[in-house]
Amino acid sequence: MPRSKIPDIFNIMSDTHKIEKGNPLGFFFNPKSVAIVGASSAPGKLSGIILESLKNSGFAGRVYPVNPKYKTVGGLKCHKSIADIKKDIDVAVFALPALSVPDAMEEAAGRVKGAIVIGGGFGEAGLDGAALEGRLKEIAKKRRIRVIGPNCMGIYDTISKLDTFFIPNHRIKRPLPGGVSIASQSGSFAVTAMDELAAEKIGVARVISYGNRADVSEADCLEFLADDENTKAVVLYVESVEDGRRFVEAASLCASKKPVMVVKAGKGAAGVSAAASHTGAIAGRLEIYRAAFKKAGVIELSGYEEFICACRVFGSGQEITPPAGNRVMIITDGGGMGVGIADECLAQGLDPAPLSAEIRAGLKGTFPSYFTISNPMDLTGSATNASFAEAFAGTMNGDAFDMAIVAALWGPPGLTDGLVKMLSEKANAKPVIVCSPGGEFSRKKLGLFRKAGLPVFSTPEGSVRAAALLSRLGKNKRAVAAGLTRGHGLDSKKMNSASINKVIETAKGIGRTTLIEPHAKEVLRLASIQVPRFKLVKDLSGAIDCAGAIGYPVALKVVSPDVAHKTDVGGVCLGLRTVRDIEDGFSQIILNVADEMPMAFVEGFLVEEMVPAGGVEVIVGAMKDAQFGPFVMFGIGGVAVEIMKDVSFRLAPVTREDAREMMGEVKGFALLTGFRGRGMRDIDAVADVIVKLSGIIANIQEIKEIEINPLVVYHRGAVAVDARAALE
Amino acid sequence: MPRSKIPDIFNIMSDTHKIEKGNPLGFFFNPKSVAIVGASSAPGKLSGIILESLKNSGFAGRVYPVNPKYKTVGGLKCHKSIADIKKDIDVAVFALPALSVPDAMEEAAGRVKGAIVIGGGFGEAGLDGAALEGRLKEIAKKRRIRVIGPNCMGIYDTISKLDTFFIPNHRIKRPLPGGVSIASQSGSFAVTAMDELAAEKIGVARVISYGNRADVSEADCLEFLADDENTKAVVLYVESVEDGRRFVEAASLCASKKPVMVVKAGKGAAGVSAAASHTGAIAGRLEIYRAAFKKAGVIELSGYEEFICACRVFGSGQEITPPAGNRVMIITDGGGMGVGIADECLAQGLDPAPLSAEIRAGLKGTFPSYFTISNPMDLTGSATNASFAEAFAGTMNGDAFDMAIVAALWGPPGLTDGLVKMLSEKANAKPVIVCSPGGEFSRKKLGLFRKAGLPVFSTPEGSVRAAALLSRLGKNKRAVAAGLTRGHGLDSKKMNSASINKVIETAKGIGRTTLIEPHAKEVLRLASIQVPRFKLVKDLSGAIDCAGAIGYPVALKVVSPDVAHKTDVGGVCLGLRTVRDIEDGFSQIILNVADEMPMAFVEGFLVEEMVPAGGVEVIVGAMKDAQFGPFVMFGIGGVAVEIMKDVSFRLAPVTREDAREMMGEVKGFALLTGFRGRGMRDIDAVADVIVKLSGIIANIQEIKEIEINPLVVYHRGAVAVDARAALE
Repeated sequence: MPRSKIPDIFNIMSDTHKIEKGNPLGFFFNPKSVAIVGASSAPGKLSGIILESLKNSGFAGRVYPVNPKYKTVGGLKCHKSIADIKKDIDVAVFALPALSVPDAMEEAAGRVKGAIVIGGGFGEAGLDGAALEGRLKEIAKKRRIRVIGPNCMGIYDTISKLDTFFIPNHRIKRPLPGGVSIASQSGSFAVTAMDELAAEKIGVARVISYGNRADVSEADCLEFLADDENTKAVVLYVESVEDGRRFVEAASLCASKKPVMVVKAGKGAAGVSAAASHTGAIAGRLEIYRAAFKKAGVIELSGYEEFICACRVFGSGQEITPPAGNRVMIITDGGGMGVGIADECLAQGLDPAPLSAEIRAGLKGTFPSYFTISNPMDLTGSATNASFAEAFAGTMNGDAFDMAIVAALWGPPGLTDGLVKMLSEKANAKPVIVCSPGGEFSRKKLGLFRKAGLPVFSTPEGSVRAAALLSRLGKNKRAVAAGLTRGHGLDSKKMNSASINKVIETAKGIGRTTLIEPHAKEVLRLASIQVPRFKLVKDLSGAIDCAGAIGYPVALKVVSPDVAHKTDVGGVCLGLRTVRDIEDGFSQIILNVADEMPMAFVEGFLVEEMVPAGGVEVIVGAMKDAQFGPFVMFGIGGVAVEIMKDVSFRLAPVTREDAREMMGEVKGFALLTGFRGRGMRDIDAVADVIVKLSGIIANIQEIKEIEINPLVVYHRGAVAVDARAALE
Repeated sequence: MPRSKIPDIFNIMSDTHKIEKGNPLGFFFNPKSVAIVGASSAPGKLSGIILESLKNSGFAGRVYPVNPKYKTVGGLKCHKSIADIKKDIDVAVFALPALSVPDAMEEAAGRVKGAIVIGGGFGEAGLDGAALEGRLKEIAKKRRIRVIGPNCMGIYDTISKLDTFFIPNHRIKRPLPGGVSIASQSGSFAVTAMDELAAEKIGVARVISYGNRADVSEADCLEFLADDENTKAVVLYVESVEDGRRFVEAASLCASKKPVMVVKAGKGAAGVSAAASHTGAIAGRLEIYRAAFKKAGVIELSGYEEFICACRVFGSGQEITPPAGNRVMIITDGGGMGVGIADECLAQGLDPAPLSAEIRAGLKGTFPSYFTISNPMDLTGSATNASFAEAFAGTMNGDAFDMAIVAALWGPPGLTDGLVKMLSEKANAKPVIVCSPGGEFSRKKLGLFRKAGLPVFSTPEGSVRAAALLSRLGKNKRAVAAGLTRGHGLDSKKMNSASINKVIETAKGIGRTTLIEPHAKEVLRLASIQVPRFKLVKDLSGAIDCAGAIGYPVALKVVSPDVAHKTDVGGVCLGLRTVRDIEDGFSQIILNVADEMPMAFVEGFLVEEMVPAGGVEVIVGAMKDAQFGPFVMFGIGGVAVEIMKDVSFRLAPVTREDAREMMGEVKGFALLTGFRGRGMRDIDAVADVIVKLSGIIANIQEIKEIEINPLVVYHRGAVAVDARAALE
């Protein structure tokens, strides 16, 4: 199978995020031979469980127990060492105490392509363990052995039948073959999910528990699964990712071919850094991860329930096409359930749209008066299979809805198993999700729906979660098709990088770690972002001359590398209309700053044209994250950003389409689109600034963060009224 | 059983919400005799199912089939009519076509105390049905028959063994006896939940499906259940309530004795009214319902899943004391599950607090190095029952945590059924919630936990939902104990009602439906809410004189009953410092208004002292809802109110404690509590204004809505800078 080329979706000039990769992983998923190092017949030993599993699963390759203590293990000849096997081995499973693993692996070098190290006692277990893991990493690299683990379950594979999950089948059942593949940082999460899927008869292709990822990481798994024909959808569990940018590229590749969904656990992790800017203060790790998922076209799942939900949807057997929109038709024979589903649809951003007059008229002829012909549609206790079919035909055949949720309560005697067949036939054109809540009888019927390949859920909320997931996947698919999340966005020629770098060099030359306002604005100007006319002056007479040249009214601001919040120290005077005003303002500022920050070094004063009143203030910030690299933030100014955290993030650089989407994610966006009849603002100008600022952060190596606050947005144009930047 | 007196929790002078009640419902839940009107032996008939149920359930009272067509039904003598029975009947179940019900009920009058009308075809089925239901209501009232239904399932009662739920037991199973009682407007919701609870072996006391509530409503059910000793907790499903204020009083009574939880379905219903005020524009039906639930001390459940969750918690068998706080200790043998639970705790407002150094030190001596001694605590695959017990003892014995979530994954061989016993013994002092996710093996163990009386859930999210519910119940209980949600709050003597009414009478006398700004402010002043000094003047010279008297700078505002948004038409000039400024402002306003609203009747001009700069603007509004009566709203001014809907609501009147809680619910509250070092604002003054405005709306009959926007809040004091009011 030819491997896909990883697309360069970042177009970053710097190579700080250069990607390093080992051999492809294919052999792990099609091994001709497996050695179990540390094999034992002693009851309860992990190696024994693995041997048992390989026997039961129908694994077709050769299995070699390795242990100097035994002649045979589990009826197979036992080898003293890997060398003793005298054959090349695809996969060696190391079921040894942590301390013995590095030596054993050294010994296997040259003989095995890949190792699975299942035991714990490595990086997760203090400094000694970390040192052991370090040795493991070294050996893997030097000896060119791909390593899964340590501290993992390894692989459960319904295609190759490899099964290194060392929990006996009577405690943890193995799921049947199917189209979903799972990669999980947590072994217990993978095991529990597998067991759940087995009980629910949901099929999987490959399950990879990669644990401490001494070598093989989530990115490796994604690259393999991207090209794996047996994998129709990928569901990940990550607590962290190893290399942010590489993860995004691998996920991006995979998501361009099949749905990729991810649970990001450990959501409470602390923020990016103790940055001075709003951007840094607001951006938590989770926000950055979410920006990365968006860039990659990956759908985030909220936790275990949505993880299982995703597996149900894509492991249902039916080929599911994500819907073209978010309009959901709800058909039920239980009024209350229908209302609950509609409520949940609204809560999850789906649209339980009202029926058109035409649809209602069509059904009125067919249905008795006590059926509720609306959305949700209540067929009452008098419902029959036929009434469900009619409701379905009357609402779903046209273009009014993108998917259906059918909540079948099994009280009415007119409902029979025929309903299942009917629905599974209808489910071809548009997704049909079934809700079958209740007890014993309903749960049996739920099994029938499942057998028929329909995604089925036992609660209203569950069914809506599935519909919402499909809707997000549909939206994502359209975005990917439209080039969103993919483009470079940036015409770097438009950006005068050389001149920008010169400004920075000058600042660094005098030992600066931040840019003073005029320099930050100079950088913006060089990137073609509009700033007010301004000049840095040294004294009062300079200020008066300059004001005359710029034209009154002007603003006067203190310029000091020591003053981060100019307004807070009384370092800003606005709307100065006369020479007298300038004189007053000048002495006022000097007094204020002397009072509030007597030690501040005052470099001079900024005289600046006043921007017109009546603009809407927004904030656009950009900075670099240690893990995911450059990203950009957008928010509405004032309270919304600082208290409401009503902001959106993307990895940089972004396209104009990304920028538009970012703006739309912010609740306060209404302020830009004519809220209370105040007219549409120039949102194209804002998008342009977002794109350009994302270009600066992505392309200018020496800038660590840069923020425009406020960017004042008018009916025509947007002006960066204040700006700051920090240097690397 | 003596019935509780309904508390007057509103202290409303008006009697627009006078409460009308029928006879107590007790007999429905302890009937000595039940007649089935329309009894039939024909297969599939609803009456047949009911007769069958009464036989199977062990109902001890007499059962009388009634049907002129038969001599016997189901082995019992069948009577021609109710009269024919010649005995007084407690409950008559009418299993007849809608059209025949009114006559049959007339015939039964004087003979039966209560009726259950199960059939549909009434209010829910068009105008003819509504007319039939009207007749039913009339008969019930005139003939003093309490009626449950129509269009309902009636009663399933594990104490009296009455069971009118007309779906056969093989389709819908009946739950065992237990402490949870359910009242549901939706029959299908009640039936499905019952079936689910039966399958989960969760016990119930009484289930009441009251359908169209021609007579017996949710409030009646709550009053009965308040005093019902068999009911330990009440769970409601409502789509609407009949009489808002009566519901609040009944729910309040019940919630003072036991946990009351409610699903409010139909959340998307339209708002209060097309009101001119922000208060009216923002207050949706759901917000008003939520204000009512808060007033009553009722916990809202989000939908079916939380409904079942509540039943699991209170039907678990263990006596559960709501926790004293929201600190959750998470103990697991599966790291990933622990992290997922911690994430979900954060999402649901619970605190997975870090372990103290002391606790960590205590456990370090006991545990091997590869156990993760933190919260969540990961005992890994090496976990045993003993390690769980040690983890529990080491963290839960002191005061560090209020409850525990134990996620037991059954992979580790060291875990045995003894774990269940250990945990159920530990669960006495503080709530212990179990999470047992996975497949076949885990589900069996889940059953063991359940048998031991522990609330147990099959997903991390489910267990956290339960913990969050308990935490909310605990908070609620403390609030009720502290008098919150209960007090009258208002010292009506402080409020000069007579003078306020005079202002209103004057306005109504000249045909006004709103109060102009000076009159609205006069109302506030009379209620001891601080307003700027102001005077209504007729012309420029009056304005100049008045400004001199008040002292410069002043504000000048147009006063017109036709101008709702003064600023939008250029009708306001601020910061006027000289006579010249007044002259300019005066002509400017006249020109602007003439231009923007040429037909507006200009009544005069308001000259007002300028309030100091630097205050935080908030909004306090109050209005009357047709269903729930007076309510009050609080929000931070500007974008936050209008776009973010960052506001809170309460039914009026409120206490100072309510007002403080309302403020705390608003995200922008940080602006009042010293955000960015700007110092604490006078939040007591704001609370005072909320209390007083809630007093005005609750006590002054003629005021329909009144709104202060903005109320400017200083470090000391708060001033109502603009106000409007609409009259009934």
